[in-house]
Amino acid sequence: MKSVILSVGTELLFGQITNTNSVYLSQQLNALGIDVMYHYTVGDNPKRVEDTLKGALENCDLVVTTGGLGPTQDDLTKEIVAQVMKDRLVLHKPSLEHIENFFNKLKRVMTDNNVKQAYLPEKAIVFDNEVGTAPGFALESDGKIVICMPGPPREMVHMFSKKVLPYLEQKSSSVIYYQMLRIFGLGESAVEDALEDLITGQTDPTIATYAKEGEVAIRVTSKKANKEEAAAAVADMIEKIRERIGEHIYSFDDEELVHVVARKLIERNISFSCAESCTGGLLSASLTEIPGISSVFDRGIVTYSNQAKVAELGVKQETIDKFGAVSFETALEMVEGLQAATGSRLCISVTGVAGPTGGTEEKPVGHVNMCAIFDGEKVCNEYKVRAVSRSWNRNYTVLLMLNMINKLIR
Amino acid sequence: MKSVILSVGTELLFGQITNTNSVYLSQQLNALGIDVMYHYTVGDNPKRVEDTLKGALENCDLVVTTGGLGPTQDDLTKEIVAQVMKDRLVLHKPSLEHIENFFNKLKRVMTDNNVKQAYLPEKAIVFDNEVGTAPGFALESDGKIVICMPGPPREMVHMFSKKVLPYLEQKSSSVIYYQMLRIFGLGESAVEDALEDLITGQTDPTIATYAKEGEVAIRVTSKKANKEEAAAAVADMIEKIRERIGEHIYSFDDEELVHVVARKLIERNISFSCAESCTGGLLSASLTEIPGISSVFDRGIVTYSNQAKVAELGVKQETIDKFGAVSFETALEMVEGLQAATGSRLCISVTGVAGPTGGTEEKPVGHVNMCAIFDGEKVCNEYKVRAVSRSWNRNYTVLLMLNMINKLIR
Repeated sequence: MKSVILSVGTELLFGQITNTNSVYLSQQLNALGIDVMYHYTVGDNPKRVEDTLKGALENCDLVVTTGGLGPTQDDLTKEIVAQVMKDRLVLHKPSLEHIENFFNKLKRVMTDNNVKQAYLPEKAIVFDNEVGTAPGFALESDGKIVICMPGPPREMVHMFSKKVLPYLEQKSSSVIYYQMLRIFGLGESAVEDALEDLITGQTDPTIATYAKEGEVAIRVTSKKANKEEAAAAVADMIEKIRERIGEHIYSFDDEELVHVVARKLIERNISFSCAESCTGGLLSASLTEIPGISSVFDRGIVTYSNQAKVAELGVKQETIDKFGAVSFETALEMVEGLQAATGSRLCISVTGVAGPTGGTEEKPVGHVNMCAIFDGEKVCNEYKVRAVSRSWNRNYTVLLMLNMINKLIR
Repeated sequence: MKSVILSVGTELLFGQITNTNSVYLSQQLNALGIDVMYHYTVGDNPKRVEDTLKGALENCDLVVTTGGLGPTQDDLTKEIVAQVMKDRLVLHKPSLEHIENFFNKLKRVMTDNNVKQAYLPEKAIVFDNEVGTAPGFALESDGKIVICMPGPPREMVHMFSKKVLPYLEQKSSSVIYYQMLRIFGLGESAVEDALEDLITGQTDPTIATYAKEGEVAIRVTSKKANKEEAAAAVADMIEKIRERIGEHIYSFDDEELVHVVARKLIERNISFSCAESCTGGLLSASLTEIPGISSVFDRGIVTYSNQAKVAELGVKQETIDKFGAVSFETALEMVEGLQAATGSRLCISVTGVAGPTGGTEEKPVGHVNMCAIFDGEKVCNEYKVRAVSRSWNRNYTVLLMLNMINKLIR
C-alpha cells in the first residue's frame, strides 16, 4: 500500500511548530509495511487542501491527514475530505455526547462551535478521541482510504495507537512485528560489520540500524500471517544478534539507558549518590526525571570548583595540585569521599574537560575520568570523548556513566 | 513572492529524522515577507522529485530545496533541477578546489564521488559551503527561482544565513527587520490583553505573540525601504511595549533566560551555588551548559533525601518533621546552610513536589518553595506550578529560579 501524510495547518508553514506528527506516522506506517511516498504540508485554505488531497489520491491508496478538525472556521479538513470522497457530513450522536461529557468534566461551557466537531462523513468509520474533543475517522471510496486525525500530537498519537493501528492491521493480510534493540559502546559501522551477513542475507526478518546521539538502535522486523509467527521469527533473529554483540545491548525493548538504570536501581532498592564536575548536575537531573527515583537517590554533589571538591568530598588539595582536577586520582578521591559521607551502596564520580576551552595536549576537551563504588567494588575508567561540542560532551559523558552503572550492577 | 519548501530524502519518509529544515526555512522566509504555501517531502527518486518540483513551480515563484546534493548515486536534486530549469551541469572549478581543500585539511582521501559535488548548473549563482563539501546554488529561469541547499541542518543553516539571505534580500525592494522579545511571568493572553490596541491597530510594525514552554515571545516586525527605517519603527514600538509590560521582559534580543542569567553572573563576576531538591540538579545542569560559567559557579548540592538536607546543608531534622521537606522553613534553612558552607555571593535553594505522586491537599503536585540570598539580601517565594507533568514542573521550576535570580541581581 502506498501512502501520503498530509499535514494541515498554517502554523506549520509559519515555522511556529515542528512537524513531529509526520515523523511518528512515517515510523508507524513503515512498520506496518505501508510505503510513505510523500509528506505534504498545507495551510488552512480550502482550495489548497482540496488540490493537495486530490493530487495525493491520484498517486496513492492511503492519505493520512492530521489537523484541521478543530471547532473554528479555519478547520475544514473534514468538509473537504467528505466532498472529495463524495460523502456528506451528518451529526454523529456518540461524538456529540462525548464532547458534551468532555466539557462537563472540565466544568467548562460548551460553545456552538464545538457541535461542529461532532459532524462527520456519513460513511465514516469513527475513531473516538479519548484525550480531546475532535473525533477522527477513516473514509473509504473506490479502493482509496483517507484517514483524518486531530493535529495536537498527544491526541493524534493516542488515537493512532489505540484506534487507527488496529484498523490498518485489519486491512492487511499479514502482520508486522518488530522489536527495537538499543546499544551503547559500539558504533553504527561496527554493529553493521558484526551483523553484515545477517543484514544482507535476510529478507525476513529484516535488520535495520539507526544511529542516535552516541548510541545505536537496531530494528528487527518480521511480516507474517499472524503475530505469533512474526514474533517467533524476530526472537530467533535477536538470539543470533545477542550471540555476537549481546554485551553491548542494554535494552531489547527500546527503553532508554537512563530508564533502564533508574528502573533497576528502584527495583533492586540500591541507594545511590553521585559527585559531578564536568557534567554539572546532568546525571543527577537525568535520573531524577524518572518518577519513583526518590526511594533510592540520596544526593548529588556538583563540585564545580576545586574548593568545592575539597570541602564537600574531602579531595586533598595536593592531589589536585599534583595530578589536576581532571585526573584518575581526583575522580577516585571524589567517589571515596562521597561514599564515606553518604554510605550509599552505589556511588559514582566524574571529572572532565567539557570544553570548548580548557583542554591541554595531555588532557584535551573530551577527556573524562570517572570512578564508581558498588557494594565495596571499585571501578575507574578514563575516556576520550569525541569533542563535538560542550553539549555533546556532557550528554555523552552522562551516557558513559549510566553505562558504567548498568554494567556494575548487572 | 510565493514559495515552496521541498525536502529531498528517503530518511525523512522513514521517520528516521525530524524535518527541522522546514521549520527554520519557514521562519526565515516568512520574516523576509515571502509566503510559504507548501512543504513537500519526497524520497531520493528521480521521477517523484521531478514531478514534485514541476508541480511546485506551477504554483509558486520560489522553490527552496534541501538535501540530495551529496556525493552518492542517490543524490540527484541538482541533475533534476538543471533539467527542469533547462540548464546543464558543468564543472565549477572554485567548488572543486574548495572540496579538495576540505579533504586535505581533514587529511582524508577524496574519492571520485566527491568530484560530482563540484558539478553545478551553468547559469547558477553558487553559494559556497563553508562548513561542508556540497555547494548550494540559485537558478533563475522564466521569472522562477530554485534554490538548492545541502540537507544537514548545520550546513543548511550556515549557508542560508550567510549566502541565501543576502541573495533573497537583494531580490526584494523592501527590507524586513524584526526583534524578538522574551517574557516570563505573564501568560500569552495577558500579554495580548495588555497590547491589544497595539496589536490590532497596527499594520507596520506588526506584533505577533508566541507561547513557548512556560514563556511568551513577542515578535515586532517592520517592512520598510531600508534597514534603518525598519529598525527605527521597531524600536519605537518596543518602547511602547516596554512602558506597559517592561518588568516582565527579560530579553530584547531573543536570548534564553538561562543565557541571560549566566551571562550576567559571569560579566559581573558573581560567585554562586545552589541547593536543589525537586529539580534534582536541573538548575545546575542548565547553568553549567553555558561555557565560561566555571569562573563563577562554585557548587550545586542536590539534597534529594531528608538525611542529605540535614547532612549537607544543616537543615534541622525538627524543621523537616514540623513543617515538612517541602516548606518555606526548609527552603530557608537550605539556603542559609548553603551560604554558610560556600560563602558564595548568590545562593539559591528549592524544594517542591515534582509529581506525579506525593502531593497533598495543602501541598499538591506543583507546590514549590524557593529562597535566595544575594549579598546578604534574602528573598523567599512560594508557587503553585500548574501540574502538567513531572518534566514540565521541573522545567518550569528552573525558569522560576532563573527569573528570581535575574530580578535579584538586576
